[in-house]
Amino acid sequence: MGSSQSRFAEDYRAGEEFDLGTYRVTREEIVEFARKYDPFPFHVDEQAAQATPFGGLIASGWMTALVWLRLMHESFLDPATTLGSPGHEEMNWPTPVRPGDTLRGKAVIKESRVSKSKPDRGFVRYTATLNNERGECVFVTTSTIIVRSRAARDS
Amino acid sequence: MGSSQSRFAEDYRAGEEFDLGTYRVTREEIVEFARKYDPFPFHVDEQAAQATPFGGLIASGWMTALVWLRLMHESFLDPATTLGSPGHEEMNWPTPVRPGDTLRGKAVIKESRVSKSKPDRGFVRYTATLNNERGECVFVTTSTIIVRSRAARDS
Repeated sequence: MGSSQSRFAEDYRAGEEFDLGTYRVTREEIVEFARKYDPFPFHVDEQAAQATPFGGLIASGWMTALVWLRLMHESFLDPATTLGSPGHEEMNWPTPVRPGDTLRGKAVIKESRVSKSKPDRGFVRYTATLNNERGECVFVTTSTIIVRSRAARDS
Repeated sequence: MGSSQSRFAEDYRAGEEFDLGTYRVTREEIVEFARKYDPFPFHVDEQAAQATPFGGLIASGWMTALVWLRLMHESFLDPATTLGSPGHEEMNWPTPVRPGDTLRGKAVIKESRVSKSKPDRGFVRYTATLNNERGECVFVTTSTIIVRSRAARDS
């Protein structure tokens, strides 16, 4: 149920910020991902993309979400104590991601509370963002993860 | 800007329902996807998953979302007229997806309106779901897509 280094629900504090590090997006990854999952012309074909309002190839927002997810696993999510997520309250892509962009992730804790009905776990609510190197936000989401509580550790 | 068979913003009507077809989820796809993007123990390791409240391997919610996305491309999204999405208002996973589940997708139009500031496009708002063969909802999202309007076709 998690080592002494593990983070439990009670260890997350409102206002606490996590730097999620960076990830560089390549043209190849944009096209390969979109061919498989999200084959809009503006995700898979540079010429077709130039004829759209985007003016060139942009990444699938779902690929951007998965870039963020991998950064979360590297710098935020504790696999020993985290029990997934019931969902997301919002997920927005304010600015397109383009080939060569380097994205930096950040997560800010909004709230953490232990469940009343199941005190062995808690709910950690956060807002996370990805910004490109020009400081533009390309991804923002607010969600809740379920995290084991210290009661679970001690049981 | 779309053939005569294309669907424009004005062609979507509130209340209209789209059957998105079905997709069968395999254990191999669950593990392969999660190893790459979402490596929680309960997504990649059957034994570890049995020791969690899930009681066995479950799919990453992000894989479930991409199952839905591919069904949307097959049965709902028109690549000739659709210009992506600004984001999602909600995305929830009420029931876990397990190996062997066959998921059926549905989309229901909530609203469609032409943009006042950019009348060559419109906003189509919908709620979509995936249900398993037991009728349990495993995915629900509400979002808006940007779709070219008939004004764009005629220009």
